[in-house]
Amino acid sequence: MTEHRPLGPPASTTIATIAHDVGVSVATVSKVLNGHEDVAPGTRARIEESLDRHQYQRRARRSPGAGRIDLVFHEFDTGWAMEVLRGAEAVTSVAGIGLAVSQLDGAHRPPQRWLDTLLSQRPSGVLLVLCHLAETQQQQLRRQGVPFVVIDTDSATSASVPTVGSNNWNGGLLAARHLLELGHRRNAVISGPPDVLCSRARAAGFQHAHEEIGLTVDPELVRYGSFSAGAGHAHGLQLLNRPDRPTAIFAGSDTQAMGVLRAARQCGLRVPEDLSVIGYDNLPVATWTDPALTTINQPLRDMAGIATQMLLDLVGGNGPATSRIDLVTELVVRESTAPPPAQPL
Amino acid sequence: MTEHRPLGPPASTTIATIAHDVGVSVATVSKVLNGHEDVAPGTRARIEESLDRHQYQRRARRSPGAGRIDLVFHEFDTGWAMEVLRGAEAVTSVAGIGLAVSQLDGAHRPPQRWLDTLLSQRPSGVLLVLCHLAETQQQQLRRQGVPFVVIDTDSATSASVPTVGSNNWNGGLLAARHLLELGHRRNAVISGPPDVLCSRARAAGFQHAHEEIGLTVDPELVRYGSFSAGAGHAHGLQLLNRPDRPTAIFAGSDTQAMGVLRAARQCGLRVPEDLSVIGYDNLPVATWTDPALTTINQPLRDMAGIATQMLLDLVGGNGPATSRIDLVTELVVRESTAPPPAQPL
Repeated sequence: MTEHRPLGPPASTTIATIAHDVGVSVATVSKVLNGHEDVAPGTRARIEESLDRHQYQRRARRSPGAGRIDLVFHEFDTGWAMEVLRGAEAVTSVAGIGLAVSQLDGAHRPPQRWLDTLLSQRPSGVLLVLCHLAETQQQQLRRQGVPFVVIDTDSATSASVPTVGSNNWNGGLLAARHLLELGHRRNAVISGPPDVLCSRARAAGFQHAHEEIGLTVDPELVRYGSFSAGAGHAHGLQLLNRPDRPTAIFAGSDTQAMGVLRAARQCGLRVPEDLSVIGYDNLPVATWTDPALTTINQPLRDMAGIATQMLLDLVGGNGPATSRIDLVTELVVRESTAPPPAQPL
Repeated sequence: MTEHRPLGPPASTTIATIAHDVGVSVATVSKVLNGHEDVAPGTRARIEESLDRHQYQRRARRSPGAGRIDLVFHEFDTGWAMEVLRGAEAVTSVAGIGLAVSQLDGAHRPPQRWLDTLLSQRPSGVLLVLCHLAETQQQQLRRQGVPFVVIDTDSATSASVPTVGSNNWNGGLLAARHLLELGHRRNAVISGPPDVLCSRARAAGFQHAHEEIGLTVDPELVRYGSFSAGAGHAHGLQLLNRPDRPTAIFAGSDTQAMGVLRAARQCGLRVPEDLSVIGYDNLPVATWTDPALTTINQPLRDMAGIATQMLLDLVGGNGPATSRIDLVTELVVRESTAPPPAQPL
C-alpha cells in the first residue's frame, strides 16, 4: 500500500509495513524496536534502514510518562497470564509508559460498568486478552479515541479489530503428526472449552493429521474441558479407565497435562512407556514436570509484545492497523512421548 | 491510641485500629472490607459496627476512577508474582482504582531513572514487592505525597516503612518439626539467596527445631541458592550424590522443590519412600507435582491484599500506618513426605 504513496504521511507506517518492506516477520521488527539481542546484525541493519526511510515514529519511546495502557485479562491463571504480562511489560517499560492490569473473573465479555470505570481513567489504549467487546463497546472506545488490540487464540475476531493470535489448527496438527510418527494409532485429545474456537481448531488440526494417513480419531476420545489441571485429571481418569484406552493423550494446556500425568500415575501407567502425553503452551513449568512435557510452543510473550507494539502504533497515530497476525506454533519434544508399548495394553 | 481521643479525626483510623478494636486479625478486617464471603456472620457484624463507630473511610471504594497505584515487582516469576498480583487486584478492583504493574529485572534496589519515570505518571501510591527504596528515594516519594507500602518476606525493613510479610522463621521451624516427627534425623535445607534475610530466617527456624530436641543440622546440608527450579535441581543433585545423603530436603520454594524432585528421580530415589521433600509458598502448582508437595503455606494473596488495603488507607489520608504485619505460615501436608526408609540408605 505505502509503496504507491511515497510521500504519504509517516503516520501510515506500522510495524507490518516495515516487516513487509524488509521481508521479515512482524516479530523480528518488534524485537529490533524493543532492543532485543537475538536479531542477526544484517537483518537488524535492514530493519533500522527501513524504519528510518519510512520515518517510523517510535513515539511512545520518545515520550516517557505520556500515558498508560490497560491490559485486561479474562482471568488470572498462574502461568499463561504471567507470560502475556511479561511480553507486554517488556514493551511498555522500554516505551516508558505505564501498564495497568485488571481481570474479569473469567468473563469473556466485559461488563459495561467495568468499561465505564476503565474509560474514566483515560487510558491511552486497551489490550484485551481472551475477551471481546460488544459492538457498542467498540464504538464507545472509538468515539473516545481509545485504540484497542486483542490478544486471542480465537481467529473469529472481527477483521476490523487488530488481533494477535497463534495458529491453533497447526498446533493440533503438529501434536498428532508427532504421535503418529512414533507409531501411536489410538490417540485422545482433551481440548479447551468447547465454546472457545481455539479448542475446536486444535482438535480439528489433530483430527486432520490422522485423516492425512487414512485414520480417524475415535469420537469417544475427543474431549473438551477447562484448561485447568483438574479438568485434565478428570478427563484423564475417564479415558484411561476405558477398556480400549488410548496410548497417547494430547492435552489442551501444560497445566491440563499435569492433571493427565496425575491420572496416569493413579492408573499405574508409566509416562512415556505406557502412555504418551503432549501439553500445550510450553510454559516454564513444562520443563520441570515428571517427566518433562513434550508440548506445543505457543509464543505467548512474543504475541503479547507484538500486540503491545501494535497498540502503541495506534496510540501514536500510526494506523489503521487492521492486521490479524497469527504467530507460528511449534512442537517441543521432551520426555513425555515415546513409541507405544509393543504389546497392546 | 484512638481510644484516648474519641473525637479525633476519622483520618487516624486504619484497618489495624479496627482489627485491634474487634480483636480479630487485620486479614479478617480486610476480607470484610473487600466483600469476601469467608467471615463468620457474627464477626462480620462486629467489624462492620467498629468500622461505623470509627467512621472508617472506605475512600477508595467511594471514588471510582480516582487514581492508580503502582505495583512494582523486583521480577516476574511464574507463580509467586501472580499470587501477589491476584491479591492486589482483588482489592483495587473493588476499590475502583487502577493497578499498574512493572518489574525491575531482578534488581532489589530501584534505579533512580525508573523512579523518576514512575513519579512522572503521578501514581496515588506505590506498592513494592521484594524491593527497597534508598533513603533519598523514600524522601522523594514523601515530598511528592506518594505513600508506599512494601510486601516483603524480609523483616529487616525499616520500621518507618509500612510492610507486610510472613513469618519465615516459623515456616522453617514447622518444616523441620514435621520431618523430625516423621523420624528423619539427617535433613537438608536449600534456602533462598544468602543475602536475602528470609532465606536466613527459614534456615535458622529449621535449625532451631533440631536444637529443640538436641540435634544439629550438618552444616554441609545447609545450602543457599536462587528460588528457581534450576537451583533446586543443582543443589539436589549435589546433596543426593553424597555418600551420607540426607533422607529429607526442605526447599526454598515450590519451584525449587520441583527441581529437587527431578534430581531425586535422576538419582533413582523414590519420593517419599526414599526421600522426603518439602516445598515453600504453597503455589497452585504444588498440588499437581508428582508427588503432590508437602509445603509451607505463605499466604501471598492475603499479604498482597492487606498491603494494598494499607496503601489505600494511606492514599485516603488514614494513617500514619507504621505497621509491620507478618502473616502466619502453615504446614500443608500432601504426598512428598513420609517416614525415612527403615534401613539406612
